[in-house]
Amino acid sequence: MDCGANGTKRIVDFRSDTITKPTAAMRAAMASAEVDDDIVTVDPTMDELQKEMARIFGKEAALFVPSGTMGNLISVLVHCEARASEAIIGSESHINVYEQGGMATLGGVFPSIVPNNPDGTMDLRAVENAIKPLDDEHFATTRLICIENTHNRCGGRCVSVEYTDQVGQLAKRYGLRLHVDGARIFNASTALGVSPERLVRAADTVSVCLSKGLAAPAGSVIVGSHEFIEKAKRLRKALGGAMRQVGILAAPGLVALKDMVCRLYEDHSNARLLAEGLCGMKGLQVDMSAVETNIVNVDVTKSRFTAEELCRAMGKIGILSYDLTKTSIRLVTHYHISEDDVRYTLACFQVLFESDLV
Amino acid sequence: MDCGANGTKRIVDFRSDTITKPTAAMRAAMASAEVDDDIVTVDPTMDELQKEMARIFGKEAALFVPSGTMGNLISVLVHCEARASEAIIGSESHINVYEQGGMATLGGVFPSIVPNNPDGTMDLRAVENAIKPLDDEHFATTRLICIENTHNRCGGRCVSVEYTDQVGQLAKRYGLRLHVDGARIFNASTALGVSPERLVRAADTVSVCLSKGLAAPAGSVIVGSHEFIEKAKRLRKALGGAMRQVGILAAPGLVALKDMVCRLYEDHSNARLLAEGLCGMKGLQVDMSAVETNIVNVDVTKSRFTAEELCRAMGKIGILSYDLTKTSIRLVTHYHISEDDVRYTLACFQVLFESDLV
Amino acid sequence: MDCGANGTKRIVDFRSDTITKPTAAMRAAMASAEVDDDIVTVDPTMDELQKEMARIFGKEAALFVPSGTMGNLISVLVHCEARASEAIIGSESHINVYEQGGMATLGGVFPSIVPNNPDGTMDLRAVENAIKPLDDEHFATTRLICIENTHNRCGGRCVSVEYTDQVGQLAKRYGLRLHVDGARIFNASTALGVSPERLVRAADTVSVCLSKGLAAPAGSVIVGSHEFIEKAKRLRKALGGAMRQVGILAAPGLVALKDMVCRLYEDHSNARLLAEGLCGMKGLQVDMSAVETNIVNVDVTKSRFTAEELCRAMGKIGILSYDLTKTSIRLVTHYHISEDDVRYTLACFQVLFESDLV
Amino acid sequence: MDCGANGTKRIVDFRSDTITKPTAAMRAAMASAEVDDDIVTVDPTMDELQKEMARIFGKEAALFVPSGTMGNLISVLVHCEARASEAIIGSESHINVYEQGGMATLGGVFPSIVPNNPDGTMDLRAVENAIKPLDDEHFATTRLICIENTHNRCGGRCVSVEYTDQVGQLAKRYGLRLHVDGARIFNASTALGVSPERLVRAADTVSVCLSKGLAAPAGSVIVGSHEFIEKAKRLRKALGGAMRQVGILAAPGLVALKDMVCRLYEDHSNARLLAEGLCGMKGLQVDMSAVETNIVNVDVTKSRFTAEELCRAMGKIGILSYDLTKTSIRLVTHYHISEDDVRYTLACFQVLFESDLV
Repeated sequence: MDCGANGTKRIVDFRSDTITKPTAAMRAAMASAEVDDDIVTVDPTMDELQKEMARIFGKEAALFVPSGTMGNLISVLVHCEARASEAIIGSESHINVYEQGGMATLGGVFPSIVPNNPDGTMDLRAVENAIKPLDDEHFATTRLICIENTHNRCGGRCVSVEYTDQVGQLAKRYGLRLHVDGARIFNASTALGVSPERLVRAADTVSVCLSKGLAAPAGSVIVGSHEFIEKAKRLRKALGGAMRQVGILAAPGLVALKDMVCRLYEDHSNARLLAEGLCGMKGLQVDMSAVETNIVNVDVTKSRFTAEELCRAMGKIGILSYDLTKTSIRLVTHYHISEDDVRYTLACFQVLFESDLV
Repeated sequence: MDCGANGTKRIVDFRSDTITKPTAAMRAAMASAEVDDDIVTVDPTMDELQKEMARIFGKEAALFVPSGTMGNLISVLVHCEARASEAIIGSESHINVYEQGGMATLGGVFPSIVPNNPDGTMDLRAVENAIKPLDDEHFATTRLICIENTHNRCGGRCVSVEYTDQVGQLAKRYGLRLHVDGARIFNASTALGVSPERLVRAADTVSVCLSKGLAAPAGSVIVGSHEFIEKAKRLRKALGGAMRQVGILAAPGLVALKDMVCRLYEDHSNARLLAEGLCGMKGLQVDMSAVETNIVNVDVTKSRFTAEELCRAMGKIGILSYDLTKTSIRLVTHYHISEDDVRYTLACFQVLFESDLV
Repeated sequence: MDCGANGTKRIVDFRSDTITKPTAAMRAAMASAEVDDDIVTVDPTMDELQKEMARIFGKEAALFVPSGTMGNLISVLVHCEARASEAIIGSESHINVYEQGGMATLGGVFPSIVPNNPDGTMDLRAVENAIKPLDDEHFATTRLICIENTHNRCGGRCVSVEYTDQVGQLAKRYGLRLHVDGARIFNASTALGVSPERLVRAADTVSVCLSKGLAAPAGSVIVGSHEFIEKAKRLRKALGGAMRQVGILAAPGLVALKDMVCRLYEDHSNARLLAEGLCGMKGLQVDMSAVETNIVNVDVTKSRFTAEELCRAMGKIGILSYDLTKTSIRLVTHYHISEDDVRYTLACFQVLFESDLV
Repeated sequence: MDCGANGTKRIVDFRSDTITKPTAAMRAAMASAEVDDDIVTVDPTMDELQKEMARIFGKEAALFVPSGTMGNLISVLVHCEARASEAIIGSESHINVYEQGGMATLGGVFPSIVPNNPDGTMDLRAVENAIKPLDDEHFATTRLICIENTHNRCGGRCVSVEYTDQVGQLAKRYGLRLHVDGARIFNASTALGVSPERLVRAADTVSVCLSKGLAAPAGSVIVGSHEFIEKAKRLRKALGGAMRQVGILAAPGLVALKDMVCRLYEDHSNARLLAEGLCGMKGLQVDMSAVETNIVNVDVTKSRFTAEELCRAMGKIGILSYDLTKTSIRLVTHYHISEDDVRYTLACFQVLFESDLV
C-alpha cells in the first residue's frame, strides 16, 4: 500500500467508466483521421464507424450522436413520432432517472413506468398490463418498450438473450417497438458470451456508448433500420447533434472497437475481485450473484456510516466513488484500474475498518 | 323485483356519477341566467359561481374550466411553468391513468410516479425520496406534488386532513406546490365531516367537478391564489377552454352547490348498502373499510367469472357498471340511484347467483 | 338621437359579434334539451348538432369543441400529428395573432408565416414557396395550409370559392392538408351567395363558431373526415374539452342554425350603412370595397385623434368599439344592433365631429 | 487555368466555410490535449476554451455545444423558459429557416416573425410592434429578440454596433433579452474593425461557431451571464449535447482562436475579388455594397439559366456552390480557397460565358 509515484497521492477512480481517457492509439487515429463535412457530404471515417457498428449489431444502419442521452432521446422520439405517445420504461432505468425526463420535457412522450426487478428486468406481465388499449380516449397510445443492458442502477446486471427475445415477442404481438439502452451492451455481450448481434436481435434499435468502458473520448452510436436512422438523423439535426468534421470523434471510436471491447473481461474480473474483497468486510455487503460486469454495488446498511460518509472518507485517501443511495455505494472498474489498484483499494478499506476508527 | 314503468326495462346505471343529468331547478336556472361575454368582459353568473367556489374552499380566486381533465392539466402546467419540470403523482391517480398523459404530451412536464397505497395515499417517505436534488443536471426540477381526494381508482377512499396537511408541510419544506385533484372533494368532505376549506387548507390549488355527484351538466372549477388563477385563465385561453356566454353553465353549478352537496351522504349510504349486500354473495368480496363514499369496488377473483363477463351479464338485465380491472368491478352511486334501486340491484344479483346458473 | 329607455344610457356595442346573447328560443331549447353523458355514451342533442353541421358542410363527421381556439388548435395538431411538422398560416390570421401561439407552445408545430394580402388571401406563389422540400434535414416537414374565411383582421373580407379551390389544389399537389378557420364562414357564405358546402369543398377541415354572429352561448364545431374527427375527439379529451351533458350547449346551436344563419344578411347591410355613413366624416376613411360582411375597419390616420382616443371618447357616450391598430378602429354588427342603432351611432359621430370639439 | 496537380480535377469548393478541415496545428493540439470527464468533473482544455471565449466576448461565462443549431436552440429555450413564450426572429434568419423549427417543435416557443431587410437588419419599429402587450390573454409573452451577425441568407452582411445597441436598448425597455446568432461574428468583427466584445455588448447572449471560417472540426460556444450558462448547461445535458473527454474538440478551438480569426480578412478580400470579377459577366449581377465578408450572392435573373442549372454546370468542372434561391447562387470563401483559386474560378466562368455555349 504505497503512495503514488513521486510522492503524489495515488488515486483510484471508481466513480465511472466514463472517466476513461483516450489511449495513445486513439490520439494517433484522431490526429491522422481523414475527415469531411458530415452535413454537407459524408465524413469518411464516420461513415466507416457507422457501418462497422451496424455490422456488429446486425442492423441496417447506424448513426453517431454526441452522447448516450441523445441516443436514447432520439430513439424514444423517433419510435414515438406521433403526438400523445407513451413509452414503457423501467423505474430504475437511465431514461427514467438520469435524463432529465427529456422524452417528456423536450419530446412530449409520456412515460409508462414499470418497476424494475433487482436483476434489471421488468416482469413481462407488468409490461403487458402497461400497454394501453387503443380504442379508449382516456389513454395515450403505447408505442415502445425500452430495456437497459447492462442495467446501470441494478448494478451492471446483464439482461439475457432469452428475456430480450421475450420482450421483443411481446412488443411484436402488440405492434410496439423495442429499444435497448445498450450504453454498456459490450459488457453484457462479454459477460454473457453472446455476440452483440444475437443479444439485440429482437430489438428494433440499440444505443451504444463509445465513451464508457471503450474509452473513446465522446459519443454514442444508435443502430436500427434504414428508415429509423433516416428519421434519427433528421432529429439529430434539430437537436443540434450534427457535427461537421466529426471523423475526429469516429477515429478513436474505431480504435475502441478494435482494442477495447476485447479487454472488457479484465474490468469484470477486477470488479469480481473487488466485490469478493469488500464482501467480507465489517458492515459491507455485496450480492455476489449481482456482480456480473464492471459495476459493484456495496450495501452499507449494516455499517456505522452512511454511503455518503464512506464515499467522502475514502475520497480523502484517493479512492473515489459515488453513493448510489443513502445506503449503497457504486464502484465501477475500467481501463484505468488495474488488478493492483483493486488490491490497493481493498488494503485501504482493510486498514480503515481494522483500525476500529471507522 | 319489478320491471321499469310501462313495461320498459328498468335501468340502474352504476357506471359513473358523471352520467347524472341536470335537475329541473338547474334547467330553470340555465333558462333564466344572466349572461355576458366572459372573454370580452365578465359573465356575471360565472363570476358569482367562481366567487362562491373560492369562498367555499378558502382560496383567493377560482376559475371555471370545461372539465376536470382541463382543471388538472392547467394546474399541473401552471405550477410547472418552466421547461424541464417534474410533478410527483400517484401511480393510480386520474392524472397518471386517465388523462392521456396530457401533462407530458401537451405540457412537457415529466411525471415522477410514486406508488399509491390501497387507501389512496402515497408513503410520505416515498414522496420525499422522489423529490430530486436541485443541483444535479441529470434531473428535471421537482415542482409539484399531486394528491387525489376522494381517490377514484382506490375505490373512492377519502384522504384525511392530517395526511393532506403532512403532504402540504413536506411540499412547503422543499419549496414545492401541492395540488389536490378534488373531482369528488365534496364526497370526501361529506364523509369525513370536515369543511372543504379545512380539508384543502394545505393545498395551493384544487380542481373540483360540478358534473359528477353534483349533477351539473358540465364543468369543473379550479381554486387557488390570485396569481395562480390569472395564469390559469391565460392557459385556459390557449387550450381553448374559454367560453363566451358561459353563465349558462355557471347557473346549474350554483344550483348544484346549493341543492346537491347536502345530499351526497345519501349516495354514500346507498353505496354502503350495496357493498354490504354484495359482500355476502358467492365469490364476491368487498373491503368494507374501503367503502367510504359513493364508490364500491367489488373483487370477483373468487367468482367463476371475470369482471368483464359479470359486467356484461348484469348489463343485459339493466344493471350497468364497469370492470375496473380483470378481477374487479366498480359501481358508483349518485343522484339517480335510490335506495330502492340498490335493493333491486341486490335482488338481481341474488337471483343470478342463487340460480347456480352463473 | 335619444337616450336609452327610462333615461338609462343607450349602449350600442360594436366590440364583437361574440357578445351576442342567446335568444329566447335558445334558452327554451336548453331548458328542455334531451341530454346524456357525451363521454360515457353519446349526448343525443349533441349528436344531432354534429350530424347537422357535417351535412351542411358536406363532410363525413363533426365535433363540438368549447371554442374556436380549440377548434383551430385541434385541427392544426391533428393534421400535424408527427413531431417536427410545419403549418403555413397567414401573417394576419387569428391562428397567428390571437391564439397565444398554442400550435407551437402546446403542440410543438412550427408556423410558416406567409403575408396576408389586404383581402385576406395569401399569394399562391408565396404559399408554394413556403412549402419545404422533404429531403433536406434543415427543414421541418410542411403538412398543412390554413386559410381564414371571413378574414377577421382583414376586415371581414370573404375568401372566394375560386381562391379556396386553388389553395386546395396546391395543397393536394404537395400532399398537404387544407384547414379553413371558418369562425364566420356563414357570413362568407351569405355574402358570396354560395352554399357552405361548396365554399369549403376543397378543404379537409373547417372550424365554425356558433357563438359569434349565430348568437349561441358557446362553442364551435369542426368538420372533416371520419378519421380526422376520431383523432380530434381524442385530442379534445386530452385538452380537457370533452364535456358531459353537453346537449345543453348543442340545443342553442341547433336553434342558431335554424334561426340565425338566415338573418346574417341584416348584419351585413347594417355594416354597409355604418361604413357609408362614417366614410364621409371628417378624417375617417373606410375602404368600401372591403366592407363585405359584418365588420367595418375605419382608418383614422387623417383624424386628429388616435384610434384609442376615438374609441374611448365614443365609449363615454355608449358607442363601444375596439382599436384594431393605432390608426384603425374595428366595428362589428350583429344580432343586437338594429338599423336604428346604426343611424343613432352615425348621428353621435356627426355631433362629435361637427362640434369641432374633436 | 490548369487542372489540379497530377492531372486530378482541380476542385474549388465554395459551398460553405463549414467544409474547412482542421489544420496541422489543430490536429497536433488534439493529439496532445489534456482531457477529463467534463460531466463528472471539468475538462481542463474545455475550461480554457470556455474562459477564453467569455473573455473575448466580454461575458461572464461560456459553454461549448456540438453545433450552432444547438447553441441557438439552447439560447432561445433558456431565455424563453416559461411556457407560452414568444421570440422575435427575422424572416431570413438561420433560426427561422434552417433549424427545423426546433424552438417550437422541441421547445414549444412561438416565433414572432419580422421581415429582414436586405442588409440583415429588421426595422426597429416592426420589432417594437411585434412585442405583445403583457395583459392580453390572446397573446403569448414576448421574451426575446434574436438578430444574426453576419447575416447568412442576406449575403454575409454585417450588422453594425449602432444597430445592435439600438436593438439592445429596445429589448431592455421592454424587459426582453437579446440573443445574437453570431455563427460568423468574427467575420463581422473583422469587417467592421470592431472588437467582438464591443460588437455584442448590448446582447445578453451570443452563439459563435468554431467550425465555419475558423476551421475547427466541430462545435460552437455560447456566451452569457453565469446564470444563463448554468441553465444552458442543464439544457445541454437534456438535449444530449454534454460530452465526456471533450477537450479533444476544445484543443482545435483554441488553435482556431489563435491562428484563424486573424486571417479572416483574406477570405473577405477573396470574396470581393470574386464578386468584382463575376459582376461584369454576362447575365450575372452582384450587389457589391452587400459583399462585406466571405459570402457572395450572385443574382442570375438576367442569365439564360436558373441558379440550379448554373450550379450544376460549374460543379461539373469542379467549381462547387449552392443555389440559394431559384435565381441566386451563394459562394463562400474560406481557408481552403486562395486568391489563385478565385482567379481560376473567374477564368472558368469567363470561358463558359464567352463560348456562347451557355
